[in-house]
Amino acid sequence: MPPSPTAVPPPSDRVRLRRKPGRGHYDRETIHAILDASPICHVGVVVDGAPIVTPTFQWREGEHVYIHGARTNRTLNVADGAEICVTVSLLDGLVLGRSAMNHSANFRSVVILGRATRIDDPEAKRARLKAFIESLYPGRWDTLRPITDTELKATAILSLPLDEASAKLREGGPMDDEADYALPIWAGVLPVRMTPGTPEPDPRNLADVSVPDHVTGFRIG
Amino acid sequence: MPPSPTAVPPPSDRVRLRRKPGRGHYDRETIHAILDASPICHVGVVVDGAPIVTPTFQWREGEHVYIHGARTNRTLNVADGAEICVTVSLLDGLVLGRSAMNHSANFRSVVILGRATRIDDPEAKRARLKAFIESLYPGRWDTLRPITDTELKATAILSLPLDEASAKLREGGPMDDEADYALPIWAGVLPVRMTPGTPEPDPRNLADVSVPDHVTGFRIG
Ligand SMILES: Cc1cc2nc3c(=O)[nH]c(=O)nc-3n(C[C@H](O)[C@H](O)[C@H](O)COP(=O)(O)OP(=O)(O)OC[C@H]3O[C@@H](n4cnc5c(N)ncnc54)[C@H](O)[C@@H]3O)c2cc1C
Ligand SMILES: Cc1cc2nc3c(=O)[nH]c(=O)nc-3n(C[C@H](O)[C@H](O)[C@H](O)COP(=O)(O)OP(=O)(O)OC[C@H]3O[C@@H](n4cnc5c(N)ncnc54)[C@H](O)[C@@H]3O)c2cc1C
Ligand code: HEM
Ligand code: HEM
Repeated sequence: MPPSPTAVPPPSDRVRLRRKPGRGHYDRETIHAILDASPICHVGVVVDGAPIVTPTFQWREGEHVYIHGARTNRTLNVADGAEICVTVSLLDGLVLGRSAMNHSANFRSVVILGRATRIDDPEAKRARLKAFIESLYPGRWDTLRPITDTELKATAILSLPLDEASAKLREGGPMDDEADYALPIWAGVLPVRMTPGTPEPDPRNLADVSVPDHVTGFRIG
Repeated sequence: MPPSPTAVPPPSDRVRLRRKPGRGHYDRETIHAILDASPICHVGVVVDGAPIVTPTFQWREGEHVYIHGARTNRTLNVADGAEICVTVSLLDGLVLGRSAMNHSANFRSVVILGRATRIDDPEAKRARLKAFIESLYPGRWDTLRPITDTELKATAILSLPLDEASAKLREGGPMDDEADYALPIWAGVLPVRMTPGTPEPDPRNLADVSVPDHVTGFRIG
């Protein structure tokens, strides 16, 4: 159970939830746990006055999240030094009520606002990319062909502090209008989750190479 | 298989993919199929010059997507009449290469740019909400306690045309550097997908109410 929503105040007024504020959480543990559960985020930047939302991987180290892509990536270039928004969301269930309006969903999400900074130092970049690989696949980094300087130069990494962040969670069943409980309608929750399937080895894998633990043990969500 | 990326040109320059343009698709069928596969989107708006990205449900009818929430919802109020971005993304697999940089992911995504419009007519709103419920749970609408006028007034619905939209897809295994295929490293794809779990009936369901087909047959992704 996450701590009570009122235990920790929001770090700034602009990340304070107005809609369903009781579902808001601002403590580190809740925010970290949601970020660590989903490697995918959606990054918002402003281009020519209009918003652009780009799906991308994110990983967390301490009080920062990181995103990466090509040195020539537009989102990353626009984001460098600018105010951006990084949002992570997980759908945990569909909530079916007895009236249309009392349908909802169970979810966990984090919204981070702040100014992104590009990481330039090659050794810092290498360390961040190692943390990225290891966050998804513990133990894999040391087994790989090392990153080259050319690869490092082609790659941009941005960092965003968790200074201004909020989490929102919904859990549990439908909240129906009292009179509607008398109706003969199936109500409840249909849980959903991300599930890994059977690993598909590359046809060019060497004959004696077996599936590593970081693949068979992979969990997401 | 989606049609060839070059078969249909992008509807505008600002939705033309620059990075990995060969993964871009602009035909209706590909865009519709991705939107229909995921009810969740991320909406980008600009507030005080900074981007805000909000996770929310979306549904499609013909050449429009719709989003909904409280009449007092900030995202919806800012979006009304403004340039917004609606992004839908699905993670289909983790791609593991023999070098760090040749790690990737398989995915399907759609980015829609355009001006959102609020729907005001009550009958139009009712029809849109019916389509929303039916898109998730075919046959459910007629079984529910009808929407009241008060509920309709409390709800805002925005529409966004698909006039400016792009899709991006990656599929298949890792694309490694030729020399790296000689290394004894497990490479391949770990497919992931959203899976429904066991329905959890509300404790207050009437005794003779059974789980409907739109719950047992629910598919997502
Ligand atoms: C999977 C999923 C599906 C959802 N579907 C819907 C839907 O269909 N309709 C709907 O109305 N809402 C939906 N929500 C909730 C939605 O994300 C917003 O919280 C809600 O719409 C209120 O928006 P607002 O702009 O009025 O937020 P406000 O409460 O005005 O936002 C103020 C601040 O609160 C924080 N905040 C707001 N929302 C979130 C969030 N989700 N997570 C973390 N911090 C947040 C941000 O810092 C934001 O700047 C969904 C959420 C998730 C995760
Ligand atoms: C699940 C997922 C994870 C991803 N992870 C990463 C990552 O970690 N690093 C990374 O660099 N990229 C990642 N991508 C790809 C990413 O979404 C961008 O396409 C890519 O980063 C290029 O960004 P850009 O700003 O340079 O786009 P540009 O090519 O400059 O964008 C121009 C226009 O193309 C369209 N477009 C761009 N991206 C998409 C898209 N994904 N879907 C539909 N239309 C699009 C938009 O209309 C945009 O305005 C991921 C995509 C998905 C779906
Ligand atoms: C299957 C259909 C539906 C789903 C999955 C759904 C889902 C959601 C979700 C996830 C939220 C966010 C709750 C939160 O912020 O914690 C929400 C908010 C809302 N929904 Fe729906 N909804 C559905 C149908 C409807 C219908 C039919 C109506 C109106 C008749 C409606 C009216 C509202 C309103 C007014 C809010 C705002 C609540 C608030 O911010 O205080 N929804 N919906
Ligand atoms: C497990 C770790 C990684 C994952 C899951 C991952 C995932 C991705 C994804 C999904 C893309 C987008 C591809 C597209 O636009 O179609 C991407 C792009 C990119 N990645 Fe990674 N990546 C990882 C590690 C790395 C590392 C370690 C490097 C550098 C050494 C790197 C460098 C790049 C670059 C340069 C691009 C841009 C490609 C382009 O736009 O042309 N990635 N990555």
